Amino acid sequence: MRVFFYRTHRRQVLMSKQVLIIGGGFAGLNAAKRLAGDPRVRVTLVDQRNHHLFQPLLYQVATAGLNPADIAVPIRAQFSRDENVAVHLGRVEQVNLRDKWISGEDGVHIPYDYLVIACGAQHSYFGKPEWEEFAPGLKTLEQATEIRRRILSAFEKAENEIDPAVQRSLLTFVVVGGGPTGVELAGAIADISRKVLVRDFRRINPASARVVLVEAGQRVLVSFDEKLSARAARDLERLGVELRSGVRVTEIDSNGVNIGKERIEAKSVFWAAGVQAASIARKLGTELDPAGRVKVVSDLSIPGHPDAFVVGDLAHVAWTTDRIVPGLAPAAIQMGRLAAENILASIDGKSRESFRYFDKGLMATIGKNKAIVQAGQLKFGGYIAWLAWLFIHILYLIGFRSRVAVLFGWIWSYVFSKQGARLITNRDWKS
Amino acid sequence: MRVFFYRTHRRQVLMSKQVLIIGGGFAGLNAAKRLAGDPRVRVTLVDQRNHHLFQPLLYQVATAGLNPADIAVPIRAQFSRDENVAVHLGRVEQVNLRDKWISGEDGVHIPYDYLVIACGAQHSYFGKPEWEEFAPGLKTLEQATEIRRRILSAFEKAENEIDPAVQRSLLTFVVVGGGPTGVELAGAIADISRKVLVRDFRRINPASARVVLVEAGQRVLVSFDEKLSARAARDLERLGVELRSGVRVTEIDSNGVNIGKERIEAKSVFWAAGVQAASIARKLGTELDPAGRVKVVSDLSIPGHPDAFVVGDLAHVAWTTDRIVPGLAPAAIQMGRLAAENILASIDGKSRESFRYFDKGLMATIGKNKAIVQAGQLKFGGYIAWLAWLFIHILYLIGFRSRVAVLFGWIWSYVFSKQGARLITNRDWKS
Repeated sequence: MRVFFYRTHRRQVLMSKQVLIIGGGFAGLNAAKRLAGDPRVRVTLVDQRNHHLFQPLLYQVATAGLNPADIAVPIRAQFSRDENVAVHLGRVEQVNLRDKWISGEDGVHIPYDYLVIACGAQHSYFGKPEWEEFAPGLKTLEQATEIRRRILSAFEKAENEIDPAVQRSLLTFVVVGGGPTGVELAGAIADISRKVLVRDFRRINPASARVVLVEAGQRVLVSFDEKLSARAARDLERLGVELRSGVRVTEIDSNGVNIGKERIEAKSVFWAAGVQAASIARKLGTELDPAGRVKVVSDLSIPGHPDAFVVGDLAHVAWTTDRIVPGLAPAAIQMGRLAAENILASIDGKSRESFRYFDKGLMATIGKNKAIVQAGQLKFGGYIAWLAWLFIHILYLIGFRSRVAVLFGWIWSYVFSKQGARLITNRDWKS
Repeated sequence: MRVFFYRTHRRQVLMSKQVLIIGGGFAGLNAAKRLAGDPRVRVTLVDQRNHHLFQPLLYQVATAGLNPADIAVPIRAQFSRDENVAVHLGRVEQVNLRDKWISGEDGVHIPYDYLVIACGAQHSYFGKPEWEEFAPGLKTLEQATEIRRRILSAFEKAENEIDPAVQRSLLTFVVVGGGPTGVELAGAIADISRKVLVRDFRRINPASARVVLVEAGQRVLVSFDEKLSARAARDLERLGVELRSGVRVTEIDSNGVNIGKERIEAKSVFWAAGVQAASIARKLGTELDPAGRVKVVSDLSIPGHPDAFVVGDLAHVAWTTDRIVPGLAPAAIQMGRLAAENILASIDGKSRESFRYFDKGLMATIGKNKAIVQAGQLKFGGYIAWLAWLFIHILYLIGFRSRVAVLFGWIWSYVFSKQGARLITNRDWKS
């Protein structure tokens, strides 16, 4: 391995401080945006992927409603005009908080004056990593494309199958985890089978597909008010989703799942339960919470390392006495911005601010025209909530192009009950 | 392997004839469309992919200008309302012309009354299949995505590279083959490096990327008039593409290509030379031409098998005394329709028609606002030709949605010099 310190910018301005940001999600991207164009700093944003992903709509890529490019933008393109921001594609291997540098898998060493770690979270299979193969999660574009491939292929295989039992298990879809992602995914699978695919097959009836949503807790969408959660459950069942709450998945294999004492034969199982902080946290030598998040001080820096910040889903930040700040996009954006501002404050010799979470509320959508919204005292569901959900998601998408593309895609599929991105692509490209 | 004859339609209408079409490209799809809704036949369209692909724009997916879903439509969706058309996803293994059935890799046997083989062509590496790994061709969405991944990753790796020689070879792109695909691909790579990516990097200058187009013949676009071909060559060189004609590629490895006695160090090599008919042709036991195409009789049926037709790029059909019908979309569409009409004629006991190719001309585009057009006596190039190219391609795209999406994508990238689909996605989805 070649080891070298290298310049990330063609011109290094001598007086400016080097800020290194790891991760181009909501937190990291917004930290970099806050610092872009500021002559006091030069910024290097490191990510293992070349794109920022609008994760709240990832389930729509998985269910063929949107294209990958509709919800992902190249990180570089966000900083074309900001000469002081460089983007480095690569995977970080080591973080040396004492000597203030990071190293990448490719042998590159990058020194920093200030560090912002924003690596987010990934799925946790509760100590059963072997389940991943049978039940992909939904955190990356690759996973979304894989889920889409499995859903569409299951209908295709069912159409060709003569054994009724196998056909049945091909037309059974199990989603594990009743949080917003699980609910949205299950709702969208029910939707596509009942409305979009229904006329396309000649031997099977796609509308007979069975969609099961499994939640270990007593109710779905537990972070919402009990009444809203019950409303969502009703809407899901109306769409044709079978709810199983209060039961735990005990086994997953290539043919189905065991929940409690019941066996469900299902060729398609998807995982939307349990997240775990990125593994980089364990290399920092600082205190973590049980989910692997870094316990930061109130200015979002690591205890004992005032020049290193942790933000977004990776950070454990107290909110109320018994709750921490949730792993939501608005929280990540707010943390990213505050870390950037605290860096600038330190450069100017000013005092830092403590993080105060501004709660923008919660939303989840159920199928094509229902949602629930909870913001402070405001709690409502149904069609109006869905319109609010739609408006907010279009608004927060990055880039005018994405907004137009997503809006067009939605209007199209709403009016014609067609989904545009129903492509099965293989992983192998060779002929 | 399970072997069974099975029904492709839920209801089999007794009096109707079973037409089996292999391949959902331009030829197969248009044969099926001609027969859709006709009570005299029930149609089964077999394809190994679930989508029909608008291949003329595939190079734009490879160069991040369009999304895969913009130029591909689910084959099933084309026949939602045609109860007499079933689509079967699978790969055909055997064709038994004597007993009139085909079998698939999945063990399915499907009998037919009439057969239409429309499997098209694939790349030929002139007896060097080991080159494929280093120089992917451009026939499928998977290959287009792979080429996009390689192009974008090359710039990313160059940005991180400290060895100038390696950096140089990362910024060198070689396209082998000076037909329309090679010309369009080379032009688009030059375009993206000079206009789209130019502001995005901090250590490299993307505009310095070297794009080399290698053509074994004496000139590029040899099917065009000599003057137009010279004009295209001039336009390509103005875009910054280096032309090497009259030299043959003698070696390709992971670090570059040998052309004649010259070695070009290039991490990215793409293949747009030589096509070969699909391998199914060799299983038919009938006469083939040197490129592997089936020599059909004038009604497009296989000699001695009047119920089996071969259409599209797989068919060898005489046009003038010294030329055969070219492997172009309009020819494939015309053949597919005629085969369908000849099937209906036979069912009605009428006589069949011979294929007469209606030449719609040739077009090729060079970069973002130049093209050449040749249709009969009409020969022109430049901006007007590019507008004509644009209009024709939008017009022939299948589906209103694709038309809007592509038009929007083009206007966007034309006005802002941005390309929307600049995503690097990995082949592996696991976390």
